[in-house]
Amino acid sequence: MLEKVEVDSLFAARINDVPRSFIREILKVALQPDMISFAGGLPNKDLFPKDELRAATEKVFDRYGDETLQYSSTEGFLPLREYISQRYKQKNNLDVPVERILITSGSQQGLDLLGKVLLNERDSLVIEEPGYLGAIQAFSIYQPEFFSVPVGKNGMDESALERALAKKIPKLIYAVPNFQNPSGISYPEQNRRNIAALLQGKPTLLVEDDPYGDLRFHGAAKPSFYELIEGNTILLGSFSKVIVPGFRLGWIVAPKDITSKLIVAKQAADLHTTHFTQSIIHQYLTDNDLDQHIDRITEVYGRQQRAMIEAIATFFPSDIIHTRPEGGMFLWAELPREYSAQRLFDLAVAKNVVFVPGDPFYIGKTDTNTLRLNFSCVDELAINTGIKRLGRAVTELLHHDHKLGVEGSNEN
Amino acid sequence: MLEKVEVDSLFAARINDVPRSFIREILKVALQPDMISFAGGLPNKDLFPKDELRAATEKVFDRYGDETLQYSSTEGFLPLREYISQRYKQKNNLDVPVERILITSGSQQGLDLLGKVLLNERDSLVIEEPGYLGAIQAFSIYQPEFFSVPVGKNGMDESALERALAKKIPKLIYAVPNFQNPSGISYPEQNRRNIAALLQGKPTLLVEDDPYGDLRFHGAAKPSFYELIEGNTILLGSFSKVIVPGFRLGWIVAPKDITSKLIVAKQAADLHTTHFTQSIIHQYLTDNDLDQHIDRITEVYGRQQRAMIEAIATFFPSDIIHTRPEGGMFLWAELPREYSAQRLFDLAVAKNVVFVPGDPFYIGKTDTNTLRLNFSCVDELAINTGIKRLGRAVTELLHHDHKLGVEGSNEN
Repeated sequence: MLEKVEVDSLFAARINDVPRSFIREILKVALQPDMISFAGGLPNKDLFPKDELRAATEKVFDRYGDETLQYSSTEGFLPLREYISQRYKQKNNLDVPVERILITSGSQQGLDLLGKVLLNERDSLVIEEPGYLGAIQAFSIYQPEFFSVPVGKNGMDESALERALAKKIPKLIYAVPNFQNPSGISYPEQNRRNIAALLQGKPTLLVEDDPYGDLRFHGAAKPSFYELIEGNTILLGSFSKVIVPGFRLGWIVAPKDITSKLIVAKQAADLHTTHFTQSIIHQYLTDNDLDQHIDRITEVYGRQQRAMIEAIATFFPSDIIHTRPEGGMFLWAELPREYSAQRLFDLAVAKNVVFVPGDPFYIGKTDTNTLRLNFSCVDELAINTGIKRLGRAVTELLHHDHKLGVEGSNEN
Repeated sequence: MLEKVEVDSLFAARINDVPRSFIREILKVALQPDMISFAGGLPNKDLFPKDELRAATEKVFDRYGDETLQYSSTEGFLPLREYISQRYKQKNNLDVPVERILITSGSQQGLDLLGKVLLNERDSLVIEEPGYLGAIQAFSIYQPEFFSVPVGKNGMDESALERALAKKIPKLIYAVPNFQNPSGISYPEQNRRNIAALLQGKPTLLVEDDPYGDLRFHGAAKPSFYELIEGNTILLGSFSKVIVPGFRLGWIVAPKDITSKLIVAKQAADLHTTHFTQSIIHQYLTDNDLDQHIDRITEVYGRQQRAMIEAIATFFPSDIIHTRPEGGMFLWAELPREYSAQRLFDLAVAKNVVFVPGDPFYIGKTDTNTLRLNFSCVDELAINTGIKRLGRAVTELLHHDHKLGVEGSNEN
């Protein structure tokens, strides 16, 4: 048996750079009885089209027989790739050739493959601040230099991006321009156009991760980066938020030469994504109206979001500000600058409510004053109760003056 | 639009080190009408337990409902991990704690995760010669220094391994000790014991990849490295060859601290493997006798292997030698030293038969005199016809003296 010190000496440097997901720990707490959780990042399972997927599965067994159980092509199930291409055309008027669509085991795998194919150690990579934790984890493996560029209600901070571009040309800019995780914000149209103009002619690829774009409650869709600056854009899509996440089905659209390399990397990573689940989703999409299903989801999520915003107005002290997204699954709230959301978390757990403190969404920042609130998985009654509990925790935090750096000084 | 030269400048160094799979090209040729293919590495789809899997799928929809369609745990579906642990106990008398079993998206993902977690650039890695192409591809991404150690009917060449160990302690030794891909050979018991003794106390991990171990036609199973030197062994398993490959379900068993890091890497790579297919396989395993199913597979593959060996004896020139594996899916043949299997391939395609020339199974060798013949996917009649055609191609090669380095000199 190897000694622990020997085992430790065997690890690759890259794996030590990956932040542990604190969220896994939170989700364990969330399972306690009577706990109300705004911590999840999950779609609402009550809205899964289970009967329709079951019917689709029956047809797949009838139609595709053994083929769908055999090894299959790395690129993915051709009819599904054709559907994705057609939907981009019909819904967004985008030309996305089938040859440039690679099916991945969830969008998360898309991020891993992009890191693998594009990132050398110390390459520069722009990430949103706050940014998607899963992207930070996936890219960390490839040891890039992260440049955090703030995002807020005006989208991505253009001057900060300009500074990042001036300093060291980044290879990748990672962006979730629609209903971002964690903040819920969307980039305004002019912001997108300005970013596209900044990238014009530069050897920088913008990774447009768009798992939430279809979950719009109100307002009009904005042009995608793929539309504005196609040659510099890598588009990631996913069925996780609009159908089911458990099948682990996403896709990458990339320039042709990059797609070729992504296929090599995908083959080395897992040969291919199971065609069985790809066939089921394709059959489901053939037999059902996806937009009608999405309407049902957005009706529920929109209602839950309104309930959360109303409850916050009722139960939170007025100095807590938060985003008001036009869609998606999350709100993002800010405590007054000097308070730590991590401290709030401890107070909240004691009151049987949890959320995700902002820290894991930043590169190298701790004790931030921000928090993510998920509204997709909690019904309106629980939202009201949970926000009431959280409001009491916030009041306690502010009242007892748990300020950063002065912890304990006022505890009496 | 970026210029090609700009796109090329974006690629990470690691992706240029991955050998392209020539096999993908071969498989396209194999689809031509009247072509008999010994090139595949696929299990026989006629033996997939399709009805049983369909029944299991029904039950999964009934029992697990929405849970199996939701995001789920990175480690894998717990009842499936428990089944795997119990089967190791019952079948091999091995103690494999559930906590050390991580479900992966096929064994191929296991290789990628191991590379990610363990290999720094230029770390030393021992690979079998000939060795599994998928492992060469997966590990190449992490840019190790490969040491090829020959394998043959006596297993892994112990003196070559000793030399590799003396030169620069390898972090990993990759081995397929049962019915190896591509050669079909198995390591004799004494060879395993000698290798285990060589590794004793060394900070080297042996990756024991065992997708074919259950496909034994005759002879007795040998002790696994996990049994002989558990602390230094990482065991990979797969349902691809004994149930279906299309679900992409495999697993890794590793020492505890390594498992923790593998989970971090797995989460960054694809969050988790779909629990839907895991649940179906688990239900199938609960309701059916896997060993009875395996008996059916080995009966067919064994028959097909005998047919191939008999046809070779009939139709091949006597100076072609080949392995006689006790199980698995492949035979490995050697032409006289001075002939290229790649040249044979061209002659064979013209006669409507294909196989895989040995080259992709070596690190940095070309025009090798070896070839892989798959017998799992071809029925006995087609085997007879195909080997007859191939025999004519071999005769033509030898007769027309297409020797390496003297090509064209005798062509008259």
